[in-house]
Amino acid sequence: MRIDRKRLEASMDALGRVGATPKGGLNRLALTDDDRRGRDLLVTWMREAGLAVTVDQMGNIFGIRAGADGLPPVLMGSHADSVPTGGRYDGQLGVLCALEVIRTLNDGKVSTRHPVGMVIFTNEEGARFQPAMIGSGVMAGKIPLEDAYNARDRDGLRLGDELERIGYLGSEPCVPRPLRAYLELHIEQGPFLEEEGIPVGIVEGIVAIAWSRLTLTGVQDHAGPTPMRIRHDALVAAADVVRGVRDIPRTIGGDLVSTVGRLDVTPNIPNAIPGRVALSIDLRAPDEHHVTRALGLVDRLATEAAHAEGVDYELDHYWRVPRTHFDLEVVDTIERAARSLRCGHRRILSGAGHDAQYMAAICPTGMIFVPSRDGRSHCEEEFTAMDDIEHGANTLLLAGAALAGQA
Amino acid sequence: MRIDRKRLEASMDALGRVGATPKGGLNRLALTDDDRRGRDLLVTWMREAGLAVTVDQMGNIFGIRAGADGLPPVLMGSHADSVPTGGRYDGQLGVLCALEVIRTLNDGKVSTRHPVGMVIFTNEEGARFQPAMIGSGVMAGKIPLEDAYNARDRDGLRLGDELERIGYLGSEPCVPRPLRAYLELHIEQGPFLEEEGIPVGIVEGIVAIAWSRLTLTGVQDHAGPTPMRIRHDALVAAADVVRGVRDIPRTIGGDLVSTVGRLDVTPNIPNAIPGRVALSIDLRAPDEHHVTRALGLVDRLATEAAHAEGVDYELDHYWRVPRTHFDLEVVDTIERAARSLRCGHRRILSGAGHDAQYMAAICPTGMIFVPSRDGRSHCEEEFTAMDDIEHGANTLLLAGAALAGQA
Repeated sequence: MRIDRKRLEASMDALGRVGATPKGGLNRLALTDDDRRGRDLLVTWMREAGLAVTVDQMGNIFGIRAGADGLPPVLMGSHADSVPTGGRYDGQLGVLCALEVIRTLNDGKVSTRHPVGMVIFTNEEGARFQPAMIGSGVMAGKIPLEDAYNARDRDGLRLGDELERIGYLGSEPCVPRPLRAYLELHIEQGPFLEEEGIPVGIVEGIVAIAWSRLTLTGVQDHAGPTPMRIRHDALVAAADVVRGVRDIPRTIGGDLVSTVGRLDVTPNIPNAIPGRVALSIDLRAPDEHHVTRALGLVDRLATEAAHAEGVDYELDHYWRVPRTHFDLEVVDTIERAARSLRCGHRRILSGAGHDAQYMAAICPTGMIFVPSRDGRSHCEEEFTAMDDIEHGANTLLLAGAALAGQA
Repeated sequence: MRIDRKRLEASMDALGRVGATPKGGLNRLALTDDDRRGRDLLVTWMREAGLAVTVDQMGNIFGIRAGADGLPPVLMGSHADSVPTGGRYDGQLGVLCALEVIRTLNDGKVSTRHPVGMVIFTNEEGARFQPAMIGSGVMAGKIPLEDAYNARDRDGLRLGDELERIGYLGSEPCVPRPLRAYLELHIEQGPFLEEEGIPVGIVEGIVAIAWSRLTLTGVQDHAGPTPMRIRHDALVAAADVVRGVRDIPRTIGGDLVSTVGRLDVTPNIPNAIPGRVALSIDLRAPDEHHVTRALGLVDRLATEAAHAEGVDYELDHYWRVPRTHFDLEVVDTIERAARSLRCGHRRILSGAGHDAQYMAAICPTGMIFVPSRDGRSHCEEEFTAMDDIEHGANTLLLAGAALAGQA
């Protein structure tokens, strides 16, 4: 039993045209009109595959293929939203491989003991609404539904209102449900599989993640007649923080990574001294303690940079996800599937957060990685070769079928 | 002969309500609907004061009070646009003091040899369309009309189209015209007059100004799975440039000031390594050579920061205005006016660009400064006391009348 590579590729092309950028990437922010069009297309395909489709209160879409007994389903899936100039693999690939697995089971008229299903989670990226992985987070009980509804994008639009606007505010409760397992195929988004020439990564877990928000408030003034001696420039303090955050991994060691990805200047014109800067800090490490130590360094950095420039600051460590360990049985099952395909594979840790992170809290969970060219993701150049995708999708097929059991 | 302080204050309040911000500031960007409303109000007042109002191809508004002979007019004025969160004094005050001078001449039925007129220049701030002082720049022949029309705001809207949209695309040629003198009253926007308790600054000239644009292009990637060793982060390089630009005045000495006021990150989300950063660099000094040396340091900074992070860069020194020296006769006339009022005054240099800078190229020009509280401007806290404004406006009145001559 093998997936149909051509059919999978055709689906990737069709869905990849929804929100496509001129440079071959994807701009399909959560709950935009393009996200709605992408969802509509997926729902059509899911129904064509005979799935019973439901939508929950967070807009998460479920499609279930009945099993032989009334047992909890094996769920496969990922997300269909992208970052603003993202690629055609992050998220969408996992959803389409899940669909392809179901189509393949249909082709072979395979009956499983446990139902096999797929899921598309809402707003995984956190690009439009924060925090990221909000759909699976609510489902796992880690984010209150009301908080999620009240998340606002840069234009002040509410997530709850946008869900309703695009027609994906479902009625099904967004709560933990009995599941045999959750499996997610995703691109690695890092360089390791490609560097080692290995098509399939057996993901053992996800690094610990912490997100912080720093706001620096200086004195907005005219860039011309204001002597240097009386300036309190929020952007100068922010620059020191950006450089400091970059240097944290050298101090801590290990595989900690640190990033300032977002930085907004007010009023942001050439001839005004910036009065206010807001920036994001993203810290991740396989070792929980490294993140804790890094957060301490961020505290010190903010204090020192603000003090040196004479500006005020507010630092909010607003989101933290501990190190995730995936289920040993599921990880072993995935490894056996890859081995039976005789394709190269290795165990690996995810540096990115995924919906699987929250799902691991409510059911046995595992992930499959496929390589990213040059380790690149969250950019239009994102690419994974079809040979690798085929290996990954077949691993998902065999692992899913094994977990669902023969009827 | 003295201006009517209450009438001036009432006009300041009325115009200050157009585009007012909740915190008492002003948001009246050039060629927006609020700018149109402000212009309409001014034109109404100018007509009520008996002025012949004309609009030129750049939307600059002129109002002329006839003189006794057919001689070139004494023109007074400033601009009526503001920065996004600006104050109620920058620009608007100079326009309203010019109007108040004309109203006062009317009250006294004063006949002058030279006509006395006022002008409101388009898009002085450069906050919406770059470069700044575009209306007076075209009039002085320093900026081609077509270039000005093709300037675009952040939403891609053309200046020429916006002029037409708000009904201020005039037919009068925007070219140098014979003028007896140009006088501009403006807030100092710096701390010196207030620190010394002096109400009137006799402006001798304007510092040299240079604007540059730096674009850094790194590799956009996912903030999680991308190890520090393979990163090329445009924002890290930008941070080094911001810090470096801040330190330039310490290296050069003198009264050079340097500012990074605008900085835009792409894609600007917490979990993507910034692929692209564009930033502005503003350099100003009384000494032309200091600006030249500073630009050399900016070149070096950009090269070094880009090299250290392995990113590409493009640096464009796109705008430079040399040190402006105002007309000796006009400056002396202003000083005599202040002296005859027995109010405190001192000679001063302007750290900000003004329309007077371009006007100085085509006619005898001078400026009058009034103090800025805490030296602050381009912010909602901008403030000048009415006592100081009264001294400044009377200085403008007497200097203008002296230059126009008795009929």
